Amino acid sequence: MSKIDTLHDLFLEELRDLYHAENQILKALPEMEEAAHSADLKIAFNEHRLQTETHVQRLETIFQTLDVPAKGKTCKAMKGLLAEAKEHIKEKAASAVKDASLIAAAQRVEHYEIAGYGTVRTFAQLLGYNESVELLQQTLNEEGATDQRLTALAQGLNLEAMVAADSFGNGSR
Amino acid sequence: MSKIDTLHDLFLEELRDLYHAENQILKALPEMEEAAHSADLKIAFNEHRLQTETHVQRLETIFQTLDVPAKGKTCKAMKGLLAEAKEHIKEKAASAVKDASLIAAAQRVEHYEIAGYGTVRTFAQLLGYNESVELLQQTLNEEGATDQRLTALAQGLNLEAMVAADSFGNGSR
Repeated sequence: MSKIDTLHDLFLEELRDLYHAENQILKALPEMEEAAHSADLKIAFNEHRLQTETHVQRLETIFQTLDVPAKGKTCKAMKGLLAEAKEHIKEKAASAVKDASLIAAAQRVEHYEIAGYGTVRTFAQLLGYNESVELLQQTLNEEGATDQRLTALAQGLNLEAMVAADSFGNGSR
Repeated sequence: MSKIDTLHDLFLEELRDLYHAENQILKALPEMEEAAHSADLKIAFNEHRLQTETHVQRLETIFQTLDVPAKGKTCKAMKGLLAEAKEHIKEKAASAVKDASLIAAAQRVEHYEIAGYGTVRTFAQLLGYNESVELLQQTLNEEGATDQRLTALAQGLNLEAMVAADSFGNGSR
């Protein structure tokens, strides 16, 4: 049985899950940047990596405020998400299709973080940890903005390149 | 190497991932409902189960439109997410803390779906599959509403019950 007795415990566990997730993402983003074809997508992955470094630092600040060591807790879901991203990195596909698959994987990762940060922000509110609320909300806003940027990039993918490569799609379904 | 050559292929793969995810969620929701303490949370899980049945049917309609059999593709990330939800179900915790952990798990699942449906909606737009766009957007809106409902439930959790059970939180961090 787990030792999650209190909301404070649960808050810490969720922070550790996010800390692990962010550090895993930090390792994966350069590979995603390299695999991307579109210059805009490469830039988006690169800028998100820089942003992720800030997110890690914010979590470290919160751990410090709570007087606990900054440590991660392996998260099965994030391992699965990043394993899938790596499959997309290795896939052979037309350039725009490849980019579409990388965006799909990245948005799943973003939404994992949006859910996770939304949760810890709400827990911090309930616990009255106001400094933490502010830091977590900043990260949450940035993750949301990244997700919207990725949606815009997906919508702007070069349709002609994909339709030319698409031997099944007939545009009428 | 995978056989994702075209955006149509990728669209199908993503639909199969969601079809598997929805069916897994359908099995997990009754357990989450049973483990929840608050009546409102039980109702939310129950109503989301009914909604999920509709989401499965919509995916089946789309598979039919595309002339392919409705089948799922095992998704490592969703397996991880639901394994974590099951850990929360088994955890011993004060009732409000337990509910908080169930909401945290459910929101991660919701956001996985929001990311997934956002992706397939955008792909369907690019491919000109207009009927599919409409069905996927309906589900996307419902997943978003469920996520907001869960946030509201988390914010309304009985703080006193959690603070009383909380031997570490001092409300000043």
